[in-house]
Amino acid sequence: MNAVGVIVEYNPFHNGHAFHIEEARKAANADIVIAVMSGNFLQRGEPALVSKWKRTEMALKAGVDIVFELPYVFATQQANTFASGAVSILEAAGCRFLCFGSESGQIDSFYETLSFLKNNDSRYQQQVKLHLEKGNSYPKASSLAFHDLHPDKNMIDLSKPNNILGYQYIKAAKEQNASIEALTVTRKNADYHDPHFASESIASATSIRKALFSLNGQLESVQQYVPESTYEGLIEYKEQYGLFHDWELYWPLLKFRLVQTAPEQLKSIYEVEEGLENRILSASLESESFQQFMERLKTKRYTWTRLQRACLHILTNTLKEEMSMEEEKASYLRLLGMTTSGREYLNKYKADLALPMVSRISSTKDQQLLLDIKASRVYAMGASGFAQKKLLEKEFKQPPIIIAK
Amino acid sequence: MNAVGVIVEYNPFHNGHAFHIEEARKAANADIVIAVMSGNFLQRGEPALVSKWKRTEMALKAGVDIVFELPYVFATQQANTFASGAVSILEAAGCRFLCFGSESGQIDSFYETLSFLKNNDSRYQQQVKLHLEKGNSYPKASSLAFHDLHPDKNMIDLSKPNNILGYQYIKAAKEQNASIEALTVTRKNADYHDPHFASESIASATSIRKALFSLNGQLESVQQYVPESTYEGLIEYKEQYGLFHDWELYWPLLKFRLVQTAPEQLKSIYEVEEGLENRILSASLESESFQQFMERLKTKRYTWTRLQRACLHILTNTLKEEMSMEEEKASYLRLLGMTTSGREYLNKYKADLALPMVSRISSTKDQQLLLDIKASRVYAMGASGFAQKKLLEKEFKQPPIIIAK
Repeated sequence: MNAVGVIVEYNPFHNGHAFHIEEARKAANADIVIAVMSGNFLQRGEPALVSKWKRTEMALKAGVDIVFELPYVFATQQANTFASGAVSILEAAGCRFLCFGSESGQIDSFYETLSFLKNNDSRYQQQVKLHLEKGNSYPKASSLAFHDLHPDKNMIDLSKPNNILGYQYIKAAKEQNASIEALTVTRKNADYHDPHFASESIASATSIRKALFSLNGQLESVQQYVPESTYEGLIEYKEQYGLFHDWELYWPLLKFRLVQTAPEQLKSIYEVEEGLENRILSASLESESFQQFMERLKTKRYTWTRLQRACLHILTNTLKEEMSMEEEKASYLRLLGMTTSGREYLNKYKADLALPMVSRISSTKDQQLLLDIKASRVYAMGASGFAQKKLLEKEFKQPPIIIAK
Repeated sequence: MNAVGVIVEYNPFHNGHAFHIEEARKAANADIVIAVMSGNFLQRGEPALVSKWKRTEMALKAGVDIVFELPYVFATQQANTFASGAVSILEAAGCRFLCFGSESGQIDSFYETLSFLKNNDSRYQQQVKLHLEKGNSYPKASSLAFHDLHPDKNMIDLSKPNNILGYQYIKAAKEQNASIEALTVTRKNADYHDPHFASESIASATSIRKALFSLNGQLESVQQYVPESTYEGLIEYKEQYGLFHDWELYWPLLKFRLVQTAPEQLKSIYEVEEGLENRILSASLESESFQQFMERLKTKRYTWTRLQRACLHILTNTLKEEMSMEEEKASYLRLLGMTTSGREYLNKYKADLALPMVSRISSTKDQQLLLDIKASRVYAMGASGFAQKKLLEKEFKQPPIIIAK
């Protein structure tokens, strides 16, 4: 059986994702689609709209065959670390291909860009440093530095978010000497973070979330942009837990944590760099919502995403030492769910998997897994009463979800 | 002007407190009553029903002339440290007398007990250790050990909470070579922690709080046990902040803190002793209220109060090193409020005060004061929105309350 891997957040799963899966399946001529999906917290440093379990169920119903969790230690990181973790999982799962959506759509351009940057590495790094010193954020400085090198027109535009991710996947695969092969398909409509609806059936996850929160969770307005399974899944989640997760839910907890913490203690948190701790502390005291707080905190020097990630690590109390890795590779395959076809694949290749598979957590000393457990518990704290209790229990009691397909 | 000192929590101020003040004034033939009052968190390791500012106002309207805050570093401690801090403040404020209510009512009995225990110290300590080893709590072990020494009938009963406190005041004054002189008056009716109403006008603060929370904040039922000023103050507080503070308000914050904290980190918190950290962690995961949590946590080895204090220090993130003191004495007099007579006293003796007086906080490096600021901020986190904002601001912006009298 031939498997193609995709790297996803599905926050939530929408028609664009369904299109991507079908394209990936075709491009790789694959029997099985394996998704490595971020858990309850995402790369932009924010909570997922609904839990990883519900998102797994939606993904399986809409075309994915196996879902592995991308551990917190990778899922909440900048592109290169995010990519390293995700690629290491797909490689360990035996995928022959990795297929990503990109603005470029030309896989050769990615390889050309990779070798171009490798050949010009010292000049590139120099330029990045220069632009950082001018007070630019890291992504902005990287993009400007790339432009300074006068790249060929064939090369990809490294200011586009999906191009950046794709580039990092290819780079990670190369660095890990992985046998997985990269493919790319052009993304259909909708820019990555576009907050507006731009097409009749394809919309960005950002615009879908925005609609959900601005309409106080009314779901009709997003129905046309998501598969039936997502639509139903969202309705069920709202009924069961009474909420969708966003940062505002966690704001009272973050603020509490900040008022009870001395600045020196904050500095031990991952991504809280020199000087940021005092800024975070004073901005929080004056703010009554997460939005207000972030607007107070934002400077040219740090992107919104970078600051959100620092706040997320404060929320989960993730220390610098907890995020340090000898090698940027996953240490297990956490199986969140599978279709019956997915199960067939896993039964067949069980012995060949390059990492231990975790189907259900018992007590563990694995540093990456401990972080995932902690993150899930903190995620549950956004709810209260029965909903919190259910979310808390799932991390240990929920077996992998199985969908007949 | 002659000042008598009282050591109080006023949670809330009731008729028994009014009686005590009048008795103290008479016994000491005093012009002025100075109260050293715990701030927002109390000796039993719980939040005060209403803020220290409201409690100050109630006290001033009902007979006290000056209120100084007993810093967190003393207010949330076992009796001997609590007493040391309080006595050091009254001594520094120039009080000639300290007057406490007790079950005994005989000051000579306290002195006799003090010298008796001093003379039998090694045997006493031996017996305490013995009873601790049998699994008793510290207060229980002390009380049993005292009994083992066959004290004279004249001596005080050291199993009664107010006798214990009085004993510690006298001991602290002696240890500090203080010139302040101790007096005691018999407490009128109502045992310290009695949860039931037992008289027509005198009730314990415990029973008053119990009535307030069980009746969902309906105030009529407690009206007969408190002065008019307390009754009005409670109504105002409820209107302004929408709540009375109890542990359940802080339970979501405590639980959040526990799920995001590793056991090893918990051990750095004051009063979290060996082994307790794992017990606290697992009890919290299974509990949906503070009451449930405490019932799970309770053992014969630790008193409820002792455990509540450990939880309070977790809530305020108070480390062992933050609570260590070279000498158990206050480093400032934090003035919360005064009557016009109280102001006259302070103006007259300003130069003689043995500690710097803090009327309004600006930035500070004083360790005790930093803890008070942190505690007030955490206290504010029990409220939300406008109420939280007002509570947060007060710590820095509220000048001492002045009542014309």
